[in-house]
This record gives sequence, structure tokens and C-alpha cells, in this order.
Amino acid sequence: MREVTHPATGAIRLVEVLRALADPVRLEIVRRLAGTGEESCNALAGNLDVHQTTLSHHYRVLREAGVTWTTVQGRSRLVRLRHDDLDARFPGLLAAVLNGARPS
Amino acid sequence: MREVTHPATGAIRLVEVLRALADPVRLEIVRRLAGTGEESCNALAGNLDVHQTTLSHHYRVLREAGVTWTTVQGRSRLVRLRHDDLDARFPGLLAAVLNGARPS
Repeated sequence: MREVTHPATGAIRLVEVLRALADPVRLEIVRRLAGTGEESCNALAGNLDVHQTTLSHHYRVLREAGVTWTTVQGRSRLVRLRHDDLDARFPGLLAAVLNGARPS
Repeated sequence: MREVTHPATGAIRLVEVLRALADPVRLEIVRRLAGTGEESCNALAGNLDVHQTTLSHHYRVLREAGVTWTTVQGRSRLVRLRHDDLDARFPGLLAAVLNGARPS
């Protein structure tokens, strides 16, 4: 099983979080995760109309910035928002972004 | 006098705001503006240790994203945060970012 690495909560940096969120596809992934809790990467891919390689890149950017947590289960990957960790580091930021990212 | 353009409040897009904020120098400019209200671009340049050309680029990114408002006065430019406009579009976002951007 290939392990995936995540930054510790205290090591999550604001600039990296903003950079990770500053993309329409990643913002949409985050928005969906906020609704579903935890999702498999494959399930999330549905309707996103993005190539798998590109999507893997987006998941990595989100994970390395500390926005999401990825759990490997067999051949699939489950991904969830690090809601509490982000709130601890930057109170109100994720809520404001999710609120602003709602489809109009 | 060369005019500068700004997006209307309703045209400010979340992804562009996040992208504009996702840079250490621009985050620092925003942090300083939050403290001073309005500043000349030249005054802001002090202590930033960034080349003037690079700084002009940063000011443009912030302005075009709708984060700052630039007023031309003679040969100088005054820049200020669009605090109310950002709050109207994305309530709580700027406050959360400013709070997270405080020097530790």
C-alpha cells in the first residue's frame, strides 16, 4: 500500500491553502466534499469533465496544502476535507470560501 | 491621466480573489492596507524588498481581481482595500484571510 503524506495541522500555511483553493476544479471538489463528508476520488470525478491525470494533480495540490485528507483503502482512495484542522488554523476561512463558492 | 479599470462589485469572482491573495507579497500588501486604510504604491513598496516591476504586477493582479481600488493622483497612485465590496460578495472571507495572515 502506497502511503500518502499530509502536512501536520500546525504546518498548514495560508498561502498554500489559498493557492489550492484558487482553481475552479479544486473549488468544486472542495464544495462537493463539504456536502458529502468523505468520497472516493473516482466518485468525485463524476461530472467534473477533467482528465484523470489532471484530477490526480488537483487532489495532490489539495492534500499537500492541508485542505484534504486522503485515506488509501485497497485500490481506492477516500478523500475528505480537513474541516477542523483548517478551522483551527484559519477560523472562518473555509466557511467563507464554501459560502462564496455556492452555485448561483 | 491614465485611468485604471476595476471590476464592478458584482463581477468580482471568488477564484480570482483567492488567486490574488495566494501570494506572500500580495498577502503582505493586503495586510498593510488593512492597517493603513489608503496608501501610495510607493509608500507600500518600502520594506517589501521587491523590484518595482514585480510590485506593479502585484498591484495589477490585486486590482483586476477586485481586491484593491487604485486612484491616480497626479503622478502617484493611491491604493486601498475594497473591504465593503469583498464583504458584500464573500462575507467573512477578507477578515478570515487577514486574521490568518497576521505575523506569528
